[in-house]
Amino acid sequence: MQYKSLKEAAYEANMEIQHRQLAIYTFGNVSAIDRSAGVVAIKPSGVPYAELKPADMVLVDLENKVLEGANRPSSDTKTHILLYRHFPNIGGVCHTHSTYAVAWAQAMRAIPNFGTTHADHLVTAVPVTELMSDEMILGDYEHETGNQILDIFRKENLSPDEVEMVLVACHGPFAWGKDAAKAVYNAAVLEELAKMAYLTLQINPLASSIKQTLIDKHYFRKHGQNAYYGQGGY
Amino acid sequence: MQYKSLKEAAYEANMEIQHRQLAIYTFGNVSAIDRSAGVVAIKPSGVPYAELKPADMVLVDLENKVLEGANRPSSDTKTHILLYRHFPNIGGVCHTHSTYAVAWAQAMRAIPNFGTTHADHLVTAVPVTELMSDEMILGDYEHETGNQILDIFRKENLSPDEVEMVLVACHGPFAWGKDAAKAVYNAAVLEELAKMAYLTLQINPLASSIKQTLIDKHYFRKHGQNAYYGQGGY
Amino acid sequence: MQYKSLKEAAYEANMEIQHRQLAIYTFGNVSAIDRSAGVVAIKPSGVPYAELKPADMVLVDLENKVLEGANRPSSDTKTHILLYRHFPNIGGVCHTHSTYAVAWAQAMRAIPNFGTTHADHLVTAVPVTELMSDEMILGDYEHETGNQILDIFRKENLSPDEVEMVLVACHGPFAWGKDAAKAVYNAAVLEELAKMAYLTLQINPLASSIKQTLIDKHYFRKHGQNAYYGQGGY
Amino acid sequence: MQYKSLKEAAYEANMEIQHRQLAIYTFGNVSAIDRSAGVVAIKPSGVPYAELKPADMVLVDLENKVLEGANRPSSDTKTHILLYRHFPNIGGVCHTHSTYAVAWAQAMRAIPNFGTTHADHLVTAVPVTELMSDEMILGDYEHETGNQILDIFRKENLSPDEVEMVLVACHGPFAWGKDAAKAVYNAAVLEELAKMAYLTLQINPLASSIKQTLIDKHYFRKHGQNAYYGQGGY
Repeated sequence: MQYKSLKEAAYEANMEIQHRQLAIYTFGNVSAIDRSAGVVAIKPSGVPYAELKPADMVLVDLENKVLEGANRPSSDTKTHILLYRHFPNIGGVCHTHSTYAVAWAQAMRAIPNFGTTHADHLVTAVPVTELMSDEMILGDYEHETGNQILDIFRKENLSPDEVEMVLVACHGPFAWGKDAAKAVYNAAVLEELAKMAYLTLQINPLASSIKQTLIDKHYFRKHGQNAYYGQGGY
Repeated sequence: MQYKSLKEAAYEANMEIQHRQLAIYTFGNVSAIDRSAGVVAIKPSGVPYAELKPADMVLVDLENKVLEGANRPSSDTKTHILLYRHFPNIGGVCHTHSTYAVAWAQAMRAIPNFGTTHADHLVTAVPVTELMSDEMILGDYEHETGNQILDIFRKENLSPDEVEMVLVACHGPFAWGKDAAKAVYNAAVLEELAKMAYLTLQINPLASSIKQTLIDKHYFRKHGQNAYYGQGGY
Repeated sequence: MQYKSLKEAAYEANMEIQHRQLAIYTFGNVSAIDRSAGVVAIKPSGVPYAELKPADMVLVDLENKVLEGANRPSSDTKTHILLYRHFPNIGGVCHTHSTYAVAWAQAMRAIPNFGTTHADHLVTAVPVTELMSDEMILGDYEHETGNQILDIFRKENLSPDEVEMVLVACHGPFAWGKDAAKAVYNAAVLEELAKMAYLTLQINPLASSIKQTLIDKHYFRKHGQNAYYGQGGY
Repeated sequence: MQYKSLKEAAYEANMEIQHRQLAIYTFGNVSAIDRSAGVVAIKPSGVPYAELKPADMVLVDLENKVLEGANRPSSDTKTHILLYRHFPNIGGVCHTHSTYAVAWAQAMRAIPNFGTTHADHLVTAVPVTELMSDEMILGDYEHETGNQILDIFRKENLSPDEVEMVLVACHGPFAWGKDAAKAVYNAAVLEELAKMAYLTLQINPLASSIKQTLIDKHYFRKHGQNAYYGQGGY
């Protein structure tokens, strides 16, 4: 089997979607990339998690061409591919329909940085894209979904290495990371942040984002050269 | 055992109600129909899921006559039967008391189409019936429950093949599909849509339904001739 | 072992509190009565569910005297006993700290009869007691807790055979039934009704109780001479 | 293995964080102290619960010096140590990122004493610290986190023996107790109180704290010389 370990990494990360309850039925998908080969392994479209096997992962190149696979790749494949092309340091992408993150996406609101659980993972709010125009929807839809993500990162001057998650307006979350496991980790963290922020606003509608010193303290406790959290993993 | 596979299909779908936590105790029921024979297999009334066996399924015809079964059929049987008679393409019906869908039914509000998770499954809001008159309640109640469903589909010009779920006002959800498994799948999706929509309104009380182009894009990605989601199943 | 089956019934019902997640740790308690002997079996105070055995159930008479048991009985024993003395047809009592029911009790609001899930079980709102006076709190507290329950049933002219649940203001729910299993069943149903009603009000703050014809239809579908739900059990 | 039982107590309590779902991934940490030796066993930083072993617990003294351990201790170690130094009767400290408690911390609101579930455990609201100044954040951050806790206890004249939990503003909960098991018990109770109080305010925004006589009745039913709840444990 070609790209055995790549397929296994993608498979394991896809199974985490179900294990962490980030989507019901076949919703959601994770991919993993082999940068040197330019090959992506991604979940086949609409296959139940209970039936999924590592060998079912579909191999696709960075031009969206299927290289190997008995099944059709995830319908969101083009979004994954565009992210890989523009975010050069990421090794995995995860898309879910987790309940609280979807609610923020449907409400078209960025998730404010209300506390240290959030700041441990990113220095800004979780951004939300703009709604797509009819032209984009009727055009190359999944490719344009990726473009909407790139757009909001450009407009808000965000780094995909520091902000590893986004909400696509009226759709749901995408997350990424150094590998597929980290991408699904970020998707699970995002769901928890989305729930905490929702509850925070219910308890105090005037709650506001924490100050930059506290954000930086927590973020750099875990990231970068001076990190002192953990044992070198995440 | 007559209609062995029909009973097994109904049994498996009923067990999914418990597995998917769509109702507590004995609440909820699923039926399956054999169209060629005009025979429906339905859950017996008030039997705990833990004790249920395929052979317990009660066989009923389209005149609500019990054909076979040691137990009384579900008290909601007449509602199922009326749906089978008027929705010619459906093969299964599922009724639950899932928490969030019941809340919307009790609030007597249709669930707006707030995002792509919803649009992946139906092109409109999830409709809610009108409240029954005293005459209907005091008359053939379960039959009239079915009539309320037919009424809202007529009034809003909905197709039961495109909108496979409904809220009965102050009662709870009914869902259906090409078979019993799909009916309970739709009931589970409805519960998730109900939760997402509830949270969306809490985060943004001004949230509104997504535009038709986005609805159609997602719905027809999964349904009809040009669908490109999945491998031919759902 | 004296009253073996009584202790086993109380034990099984207590274990259901944990199984149905109606309380954390040692919170909550169920008792069962042998009416002919005037003997009540109740959970010992503060013993973790994981360690509980049928033989641990404490036997108490209707004068609150411990008849048998190595452990102290539940601190709420006197409330149970007073209910047994005044509600002659009940065979079991269940007290939990289930989350949503406690929230309504703390909000000091009766749970409105918003739909058929509620009406399937009782014909009124779930009543809430008045707050206790300082004299009652400083007096025979657990006995007075029972008196508060009796008071609200008298004031609202409720029958304990038709309304098998109540909220004690700023404390939590008590439920009862023909036996201990039915008491904990009612406590679990109450928690579900409390959650549904909470969500209903969040979605529609103007939601109101359903009309009496619909309440009666559902209640008498399941209860009394003309019931046609179930197979004779509940 | 030195301090074998101390490490085991800390290990067991840390595993309870995951078992009680008080945090996802590696979030949260518990420590246990041997008062006679002045030695604290604490969770290593960032190690997944699934991989944790008793031998992984790091030993630290009351000057924050690591005495033994292949891994770095929890990044929150200095907060634990400061609490041990100023709260002389506590034997364990627990920090989690449990969802509802974090929401109150992010809302910067103390959790009101709305009912007897709360009063069974503490006589006041669950206090919330003030926000840290930039100087404190940029200084010895985890030590200052402890100072913020000491500050609010001084300002509100609270006893750490009677109030065994606190919210650190925009961060999350800390709890403690006579040993590590009791500390995590208190963290789990706090999460439940946080959820109940949140729901109470949603149902009745005008809900207010219960009166002192009821608080005292419940608290002293379980604590102190005249307690009559339980069998001598908690």
